[in-house]
Amino acid sequence: MKISKRTEAMQASPIRKLVPYADKAKKAGKKVYHLNIGQPDIKTPEVFFDAIAKFDNPVIAYSNSQGEKVMIESMVKYYKKHNMNFDYEDIIITQGGSEALIFAMFAVCDPGDEILVPEPFYTNYNGFASITGAKIVPITTKAEDGFHLPAKGEITKLINKKTKAILLANPGNPTGTVYNEAEINMIADIAHENNLFIIADEVYKEYVYDGEKFISFSSIEKVKYNVIITDSVSKRYSACGARVGSIASKNKEIIAGVMKLAQSRLCVATLEQVGAAALVDTPDEYMKDSYNEYKARRDVAYEALSKMEGVICKKPLGAFYVIVKLPIENAEDFALWMLTDFDLNNETVMFAPAEGFYATPGLGKDEVRLSFCIAVDDVKRAMEIFEAGLKEYKKTH
Amino acid sequence: MKISKRTEAMQASPIRKLVPYADKAKKAGKKVYHLNIGQPDIKTPEVFFDAIAKFDNPVIAYSNSQGEKVMIESMVKYYKKHNMNFDYEDIIITQGGSEALIFAMFAVCDPGDEILVPEPFYTNYNGFASITGAKIVPITTKAEDGFHLPAKGEITKLINKKTKAILLANPGNPTGTVYNEAEINMIADIAHENNLFIIADEVYKEYVYDGEKFISFSSIEKVKYNVIITDSVSKRYSACGARVGSIASKNKEIIAGVMKLAQSRLCVATLEQVGAAALVDTPDEYMKDSYNEYKARRDVAYEALSKMEGVICKKPLGAFYVIVKLPIENAEDFALWMLTDFDLNNETVMFAPAEGFYATPGLGKDEVRLSFCIAVDDVKRAMEIFEAGLKEYKKTH
Repeated sequence: MKISKRTEAMQASPIRKLVPYADKAKKAGKKVYHLNIGQPDIKTPEVFFDAIAKFDNPVIAYSNSQGEKVMIESMVKYYKKHNMNFDYEDIIITQGGSEALIFAMFAVCDPGDEILVPEPFYTNYNGFASITGAKIVPITTKAEDGFHLPAKGEITKLINKKTKAILLANPGNPTGTVYNEAEINMIADIAHENNLFIIADEVYKEYVYDGEKFISFSSIEKVKYNVIITDSVSKRYSACGARVGSIASKNKEIIAGVMKLAQSRLCVATLEQVGAAALVDTPDEYMKDSYNEYKARRDVAYEALSKMEGVICKKPLGAFYVIVKLPIENAEDFALWMLTDFDLNNETVMFAPAEGFYATPGLGKDEVRLSFCIAVDDVKRAMEIFEAGLKEYKKTH
Repeated sequence: MKISKRTEAMQASPIRKLVPYADKAKKAGKKVYHLNIGQPDIKTPEVFFDAIAKFDNPVIAYSNSQGEKVMIESMVKYYKKHNMNFDYEDIIITQGGSEALIFAMFAVCDPGDEILVPEPFYTNYNGFASITGAKIVPITTKAEDGFHLPAKGEITKLINKKTKAILLANPGNPTGTVYNEAEINMIADIAHENNLFIIADEVYKEYVYDGEKFISFSSIEKVKYNVIITDSVSKRYSACGARVGSIASKNKEIIAGVMKLAQSRLCVATLEQVGAAALVDTPDEYMKDSYNEYKARRDVAYEALSKMEGVICKKPLGAFYVIVKLPIENAEDFALWMLTDFDLNNETVMFAPAEGFYATPGLGKDEVRLSFCIAVDDVKRAMEIFEAGLKEYKKTH
């Protein structure tokens, strides 16, 4: 009696594997600044709680497999606000962005089929690939280029008969990179010319800074039927625990296929959908405040990082992450050492080694991902500690 | 650009495919009694709503991948009440019983591996098999035997090198069958002798009638490490829309494997877990009332069915379903005809053709599944209409 080989082969979360060491540090009385997680600290909008408090059905019944009516309507309204043209029948509500990505991969790939993904990428894409039997083929991007895409030929040479889709997060987690118009058009061209789906993970679309523009793949007419948008209320409304996401596509075959997957797991949690549906009416002020807050954190972090000796980091223009290249050999060892051996006035910093965000063996060993889900002053202090730690580590390693 | 073959090959829900015809009948002014769905009509216990109303964290944050602490503790307490010995570390909370079954199948099977399942079985098992690439090998059971298991040799002859597990629902959906001690021991022997996992879907354990006894597979010592219990709060607390289920196993390798799957989708909806955790404290009176209500419905339905000419139906001893063999050739055609061509004083009945609950081609064509999720008087009236419809259909077909 053995568990399946594919389950055994799955990697444990590289973000979470340092947790026991952080716990130990805390138990020993150290303060730990968390730059390792993507859990927003900002309050969930009141409209979420109000909608749930008003729910008056005495039975928590199954929702529809496509999604609770109010939630689908909410997404239609939301996309309209963003000039994204999706109708009621183009949308399926999912258990977070995670399930949206699993469904998308499953619907476009048979086992062994390939999906091109710019690396570094959100590490859970690996888990989704394991679950669906899809193979991730990385398009390598570099810290020195701000993780922008390579030339078209570098991408098209990776395409073969098994290639079914290109999957991109824009703005990027873990990079904070926002693709420009030329990059969006290049990907659309490649998909169009090679008959590939585009799975666009656009959950951070609200967080684009410095006058940069977010361009949804859904706006490119010639790939209208190639595009599958995966989305989630988690980050923009600080409602990660609601587990409400969605798939949107004008491709009826995709929607019909995903609907079968959705039916097999019956529905998404009813009450959280009722709450999430109201989030589209979150006051503009809330959205503006959280935008300004994330921008301020990024500014503070970037200002500090750009002055650190030997550190390579282009200014991230979106989301609330950045990948930083360090003048050391083993970033995982450094991350561990920060928790076990280092402190500045009894304080230290936790962050994610970046190797787990790459599919190409060996890449990312000298990089870390920082997230900005703590207050501006805490980010500032964490950067001071990070810099001091890095200096000390370089001396002793 | 085509969707994947495996997605294309998935069957649409046989329970839901008559829905458009029911909608049409209703639009035409007909009253439709729904014996087709497993959505309880009974109120969700107040403790669920109270716990959610008391939730005072201003951020709907990610829960733990294993589950919200209160929800895991609630399951430990629940199992203790049922003399099932599971500790905190043996339990992982899932997105409904559906995800529990998907995780269990994924964790024990590589693609193409086989799972033995008594047929007729809950039709969504097919969807879970499609998603996980597991192959369901049916153990055929018959209406004439009350869907009890065949002799040991009939089961062991289905076992080969690819067989990894036996999956059983006890009490059974769609059959209402409760396995007796001899059957439980036989399955345990087979699993023990052949090194197979037992995936036990025990979500209806509270609903066992007429002095029959529910025996959990977790109580059989010799298969302690073979057993994976999948569970859900959906049916016993009338909280299907909460999407809170669980996996429990003493097998640490299984739990570690499932934990990786759980991490990849981050967590189960936080607020619904908070509500579901409180359900273990549902007053005994609620549990007794809902038990008595389901029993009364079954009694009324069985009394009527047992008197209908040519209808084969053993008394179901558990859950709130029954599979009935009819003296006609095509039960799907009959179900459709009931919606489109028949009425008794402008009323008709909707039920599920049973063919979709079988894996063996051709079986179940003359059978239907009835569920008892409407009030006693409605079940009674529905049975009158069903009988009249059956007589009329036999005359004309």
